[in-house]
Amino acid sequence: PFHAMDVLAKATRKRLAGEDIAFLCVGQPAAPAPKAALDAARLMLEGGVVSYTDAGGRLDLQTALSRHMQSRYGVSVDPARIFITTGSSAGFNLAFLTLFNPGDRVAIAAPGYPAYRNIMKALSLEVVEIPTGAETRYALSPDLLRAEHAKGPLAGVLVASPANPTGTMMTPDALRALIAYCDDAGIRFISDEIYHGLAYTDETGIDEQTALAFSDKAIVINSFSKYYCMTGWRIGWMVLPRGMVRPVERLAQSLYISAPELSQVAAIGALAASDELERVKHGYAKNRALLLKRLPQMGFANIMPVDGAFYAYADASPFTNDTMQFAHALLDEAGVAATPGLDFDPANGHRMMRFSFAGAHDTMVQAMDRMEHFLRGR
Amino acid sequence: PFHAMDVLAKATRKRLAGEDIAFLCVGQPAAPAPKAALDAARLMLEGGVVSYTDAGGRLDLQTALSRHMQSRYGVSVDPARIFITTGSSAGFNLAFLTLFNPGDRVAIAAPGYPAYRNIMKALSLEVVEIPTGAETRYALSPDLLRAEHAKGPLAGVLVASPANPTGTMMTPDALRALIAYCDDAGIRFISDEIYHGLAYTDETGIDEQTALAFSDKAIVINSFSKYYCMTGWRIGWMVLPRGMVRPVERLAQSLYISAPELSQVAAIGALAASDELERVKHGYAKNRALLLKRLPQMGFANIMPVDGAFYAYADASPFTNDTMQFAHALLDEAGVAATPGLDFDPANGHRMMRFSFAGAHDTMVQAMDRMEHFLRGR
Repeated sequence: PFHAMDVLAKATRKRLAGEDIAFLCVGQPAAPAPKAALDAARLMLEGGVVSYTDAGGRLDLQTALSRHMQSRYGVSVDPARIFITTGSSAGFNLAFLTLFNPGDRVAIAAPGYPAYRNIMKALSLEVVEIPTGAETRYALSPDLLRAEHAKGPLAGVLVASPANPTGTMMTPDALRALIAYCDDAGIRFISDEIYHGLAYTDETGIDEQTALAFSDKAIVINSFSKYYCMTGWRIGWMVLPRGMVRPVERLAQSLYISAPELSQVAAIGALAASDELERVKHGYAKNRALLLKRLPQMGFANIMPVDGAFYAYADASPFTNDTMQFAHALLDEAGVAATPGLDFDPANGHRMMRFSFAGAHDTMVQAMDRMEHFLRGR
Repeated sequence: PFHAMDVLAKATRKRLAGEDIAFLCVGQPAAPAPKAALDAARLMLEGGVVSYTDAGGRLDLQTALSRHMQSRYGVSVDPARIFITTGSSAGFNLAFLTLFNPGDRVAIAAPGYPAYRNIMKALSLEVVEIPTGAETRYALSPDLLRAEHAKGPLAGVLVASPANPTGTMMTPDALRALIAYCDDAGIRFISDEIYHGLAYTDETGIDEQTALAFSDKAIVINSFSKYYCMTGWRIGWMVLPRGMVRPVERLAQSLYISAPELSQVAAIGALAASDELERVKHGYAKNRALLLKRLPQMGFANIMPVDGAFYAYADASPFTNDTMQFAHALLDEAGVAATPGLDFDPANGHRMMRFSFAGAHDTMVQAMDRMEHFLRGR
């Protein structure tokens, strides 16, 4: 199970029943999709025909993304290597199915995004969760991979920077070194770049870089859900090594047919909306500052640096050793929906909580007040 | 590979390059989504926030579908058993992953929809393709299943009525008998009802019935793509036995997160648009009559009865024994995109062609004229 989704389901039922719930449980931006995206969707609705597209997506979106990769990272990517997906979820499934066989060992960092583990298990892959801690900024390193590779060959590794739930980032140099090790050892490198655009570089000094800057063999998975505020549109993309395009296309034709066309058209609009999106990001920075101040005041411990993304991952062991129970009590008694850590880390998550600060600032203030009151009452 | 999608990709490239192509290659209605669906989508775009939903979908859509099942088939289905999916594609993947283990034998009819086979193979299931012919109206029967079950236990069977590519339907009595056999033998019954609503009952006398009328154990997969003209919206639903809801939910949370919300909202509108959709269906009936007249005149043989759906499946052996090559020539020389039969039937498809008549009537007339000219020139 994906407990964040269970908490979301319960919180949604409460909201539908008339309760006032502060949603900090999922990475759902409060901001709407950018105006240019909405306008593009509206224009398509005038005609009304919304069709299957090629499995890899509309050429105009592939081309727009190729230009985006050039202008954002300075990397040149043939549009034919860009594969449009139904959110990053489809990207993971397609990458795993194409690259790996049942039983293959694939490494991820713990804590990490639970869908990685869940999809891999559904596909009968062996998930190698490598525990990480503050000393490595919760990131994998060549040494950590080398140790696991020695125990049994790793077929692949999946890395996210910025990471969910910790919000930590790898420096470009650390990323380069990790990719070089993988290319050298024959380990396929999958880079989840869904939180790109949401680095608080002014605060942290850590720049964002795509894995493609360091290797043409890397598989990049990205999405319009986070920076572009388009979660419910279910639209993302992969950048594939040339030889993987046709195998991924064959699978996608049957497994997905194509990504939603209205979302593809809206996504083109979103790529041109950076002014609006930078204002949204400014709001996250304000939320981030609030949580990084108030969560420790309430007694939460060991809060991660939050270099990027919009999550605070906090140690709740001053209050509980069962954050699953804690999350339900917080929802039932204080009307705050947040995610227990077990999603992200089966070993240590029982004492951790993740708070998403992608919502409105008012919601964050209200949630902090409610939590403070709730914790005083325990 | 899914050759229909490859032909679509080539045909799309030609159209983008300025060529005038008649699209008979995919089941893509020429009609737009119903006005009520478009209006519902526009209304949601006013607010602009399009979010993740619960993995099983929005409660209002689940409730609307429960009412739809009652009014259309007279069956009572708890909305909690209705699981909203990203098209029927997601329904198949979720059903297979939940019901079966790698190596399990699952039966389908040949000819049949290629994505069944392709998804099963991707999930390491053993696809048992049972050849069917005109003598059984291209449908599976208890006898055919019993013979395969004796060779090695079948874990499941997947049936579509109306069927793709043949357009044949099972009578309610034949469906009832098949499901009774499966329930008795412990074979899970999956009913693909995506072409429901598109039965030419006035012509054929064959009524449509849902598998749920005969068994609570049946898994029903359906979609808004065909009757509701919403292919590119990627929205469908499953009806699950109660005990399957939570297992499917767990998988869907990680594999899909949720279906596109704008499409969910639009789908509620579509369910109330039967006047408009019946007019669209009337157009298919006109196209059906045209193809059933002109294809035999041109020399195509053994055309299926076309009880439902919007496909004519025709024997091209008077012209070729390599319909893959024939389909490319037809596209390159006559500007008509149609699908070679190998997609649907690896054994005999090399001499079959599928023509989708979901397009506009003018397109059908033009395509028939072009094909006649093309065939005269061969």
